[in-house]
Amino acid sequence: MKHLINIEDLSTEEINQIYTRAQDFEKGIRKANHLNAHIVNMFFENSTRTKMSFEMAINKLNANKYDFCSETSSLNKGEDLFDTINNLSAIGMNAVVLRHSDNNLIKELSSKKYFQDISFINAGSGTNAHPTQALLDYYTIKKHFLNLSDKTITIVGDIAHSRVAMSDITLFKKFNMKIRCLSSENLIGEKIEGVEYYTNLKEAFENSDIIMALRIQKERIQEHVDIESYIKNYQITKENLPYAAFLMHPGPINKDIEIKSDVLDMPNARTILNQAKNGVYVRMAILDMLLSSQGL
Amino acid sequence: MKHLINIEDLSTEEINQIYTRAQDFEKGIRKANHLNAHIVNMFFENSTRTKMSFEMAINKLNANKYDFCSETSSLNKGEDLFDTINNLSAIGMNAVVLRHSDNNLIKELSSKKYFQDISFINAGSGTNAHPTQALLDYYTIKKHFLNLSDKTITIVGDIAHSRVAMSDITLFKKFNMKIRCLSSENLIGEKIEGVEYYTNLKEAFENSDIIMALRIQKERIQEHVDIESYIKNYQITKENLPYAAFLMHPGPINKDIEIKSDVLDMPNARTILNQAKNGVYVRMAILDMLLSSQGL
Amino acid sequence: MKHLINIEDLSTEEINQIYTRAQDFEKGIRKANHLNAHIVNMFFENSTRTKMSFEMAINKLNANKYDFCSETSSLNKGEDLFDTINNLSAIGMNAVVLRHSDNNLIKELSSKKYFQDISFINAGSGTNAHPTQALLDYYTIKKHFLNLSDKTITIVGDIAHSRVAMSDITLFKKFNMKIRCLSSENLIGEKIEGVEYYTNLKEAFENSDIIMALRIQKERIQEHVDIESYIKNYQITKENLPYAAFLMHPGPINKDIEIKSDVLDMPNARTILNQAKNGVYVRMAILDMLLSSQGL
Repeated sequence: MKHLINIEDLSTEEINQIYTRAQDFEKGIRKANHLNAHIVNMFFENSTRTKMSFEMAINKLNANKYDFCSETSSLNKGEDLFDTINNLSAIGMNAVVLRHSDNNLIKELSSKKYFQDISFINAGSGTNAHPTQALLDYYTIKKHFLNLSDKTITIVGDIAHSRVAMSDITLFKKFNMKIRCLSSENLIGEKIEGVEYYTNLKEAFENSDIIMALRIQKERIQEHVDIESYIKNYQITKENLPYAAFLMHPGPINKDIEIKSDVLDMPNARTILNQAKNGVYVRMAILDMLLSSQGL
Repeated sequence: MKHLINIEDLSTEEINQIYTRAQDFEKGIRKANHLNAHIVNMFFENSTRTKMSFEMAINKLNANKYDFCSETSSLNKGEDLFDTINNLSAIGMNAVVLRHSDNNLIKELSSKKYFQDISFINAGSGTNAHPTQALLDYYTIKKHFLNLSDKTITIVGDIAHSRVAMSDITLFKKFNMKIRCLSSENLIGEKIEGVEYYTNLKEAFENSDIIMALRIQKERIQEHVDIESYIKNYQITKENLPYAAFLMHPGPINKDIEIKSDVLDMPNARTILNQAKNGVYVRMAILDMLLSSQGL
Repeated sequence: MKHLINIEDLSTEEINQIYTRAQDFEKGIRKANHLNAHIVNMFFENSTRTKMSFEMAINKLNANKYDFCSETSSLNKGEDLFDTINNLSAIGMNAVVLRHSDNNLIKELSSKKYFQDISFINAGSGTNAHPTQALLDYYTIKKHFLNLSDKTITIVGDIAHSRVAMSDITLFKKFNMKIRCLSSENLIGEKIEGVEYYTNLKEAFENSDIIMALRIQKERIQEHVDIESYIKNYQITKENLPYAAFLMHPGPINKDIEIKSDVLDMPNARTILNQAKNGVYVRMAILDMLLSSQGL
């Protein structure tokens, strides 16, 4: 593994290798000392948990972290991103954690030749991929269920614009989970083979083991559908959440929109903060594997 | 001690414990290795010395430092600060150093329940509290005077809007110092029991052992009083500064407004930069105590 | 050596001392452990490679790095830069890496007296000096040529506004290189003794061992000369680049303006990224020498 660009590229063996390594980090069985590794975070979109999670992973691996600030960079002097990264490679950076609004940029960048080996890790690309989120979601689910192939997960919310949904679906399919997507027609996006689509909450939630809620991008949704109507039909409440289902959410949550606030106090919702916690170990595992493959 | 929110919460014993520990750090007698501690700075207001001082304290404790940048965070996606911090707690942050314009926010936040223990340290809240500044002021004064109960300190400047003044007064009262406040009527603020108020500089400065000048917020003062008149009546000069008094200032100084420039070359003014120096040791002591109380 | 302000201040012995130390760092012969050194980057102008290069140098020296962000600093409360740095000195900073648009500010600041010793390193001042760039250029050239006094370097581009050119010329003159400057009359700037000036590319490139291209500041050049005409007369192409000449550029490159894109794939152009790589070792050497002179 040289880069982590999207879930499609990973075999189930590689995913389980990440799972095991993350678990070893969480248990404290594995330690890593990447004192000579230099990792730069390049976030061109807002982030709290993903960025801080990567920063903590870098610190816990004893690697060196750098923060590339696009606003004060030479990109303002007309330099393109490939040239910037090629220079960072020459300076001695070993890995780039990139979040960008462009769907294909990271794939393109990772296919180029640089001064020295440099690994790309996708921390969110446009609307199409957020692989570390999918891997931490897998880690969180796998901790609870030995066998995923007989489990049903329902993804609910603005699926059309969600890179989390895209990466999650790709991953869950690899493990033969039963995947349902629930939303109003205008938020469902392009239909994916092997996924069951629902517009009725009750039907979708029936026999669901996991409910994965997504953020409703308030700024965007008004074009499509009025928010009142979304809440009425799809908001997760104490009443409609299946008793034994795990409730997940990649965060940030818009309280009282996709999830009613009081649901967050239910035991089912504990999983949400566990996702954030698990993310650090999963990112440690990924970075550790990429750096090791460079001999670092 | 789980949090440091304001001076009111501290006993004189606790304050002296901080003093002793800070002194041990300064002398090099005490070392701390908080390699597993993760501390995030969240500054929602401008800062140079407080922020850099905390950063250096974190480095000297061998802890891991993080910089939360509100402008590129998920707060821009509508997340509230409690949820952000709860996520940071889940990720593994052990302490938050918070500066915010809101008077009560940190108290409110610190009273909530988080995923894991997380300590709050107030680095300046609105106009009401700046406890680490008061503690470093105490440290600076205590180094010179064995017994504070027979010493007189005069605080001069825009007391009405000063969180430094509020925290200082609360602390000095605990040690029975004689406290005088000097300013024009419109900058004096609400009167506090046990404090003597003056509008005449000469009377206030008489027999003062310490003069604590505050920054005149030029942008704000023009509503209240013209700056010429303030300078005329309250500017500290070579002529009016008592010969043996220590001159203190929390910084940044507006030269030739609250203090005439040439005063800063006098031996009395050396204390000001010593305050900045001492701040690092005091913050090391506070962080060390809070982290230790978490078993870190 | 207490500060690094400009090349004029350095003897050829000091320059070669930096060269040797940088080489030892590159070879891994020399290690440095400046665990008690605290270095603050203050960049008031955009930068990618210089800033990241200094950050990596600081990390590789095992020193503590700090990022001063002018936008969220107390400079916004009216504090001047001397006072800010004097406070940073009191807090315990040992060195300041400064980039600023003002030509003379760093010289002025470095001549003042601070609370404690603090070293200034010029990371680019206005249009007049960029000494660490010149030193890494020297390092890059010296690696290839034993004797510089019989070598010819041609600097081409917007020389009038280039601090890189100013520092390079000063340095190359110290080693008796043959220096040519090539540009249109309006971009040539004030003429410097000992430098040969050309307006014809073919004449200038003849027998040049090194071609040093400079960034054409597109935003600025339009006042002087139309860009089409510059490209026509001075763009470096496969056809006009001397076969054996090393091609250098301080970066960032405006492709297809000062250099035609396909030139960058030629072996001659490999030197450009080597400059970036070498910069880290040169900056390590400089910081190591300055910190050592403080007993750190």
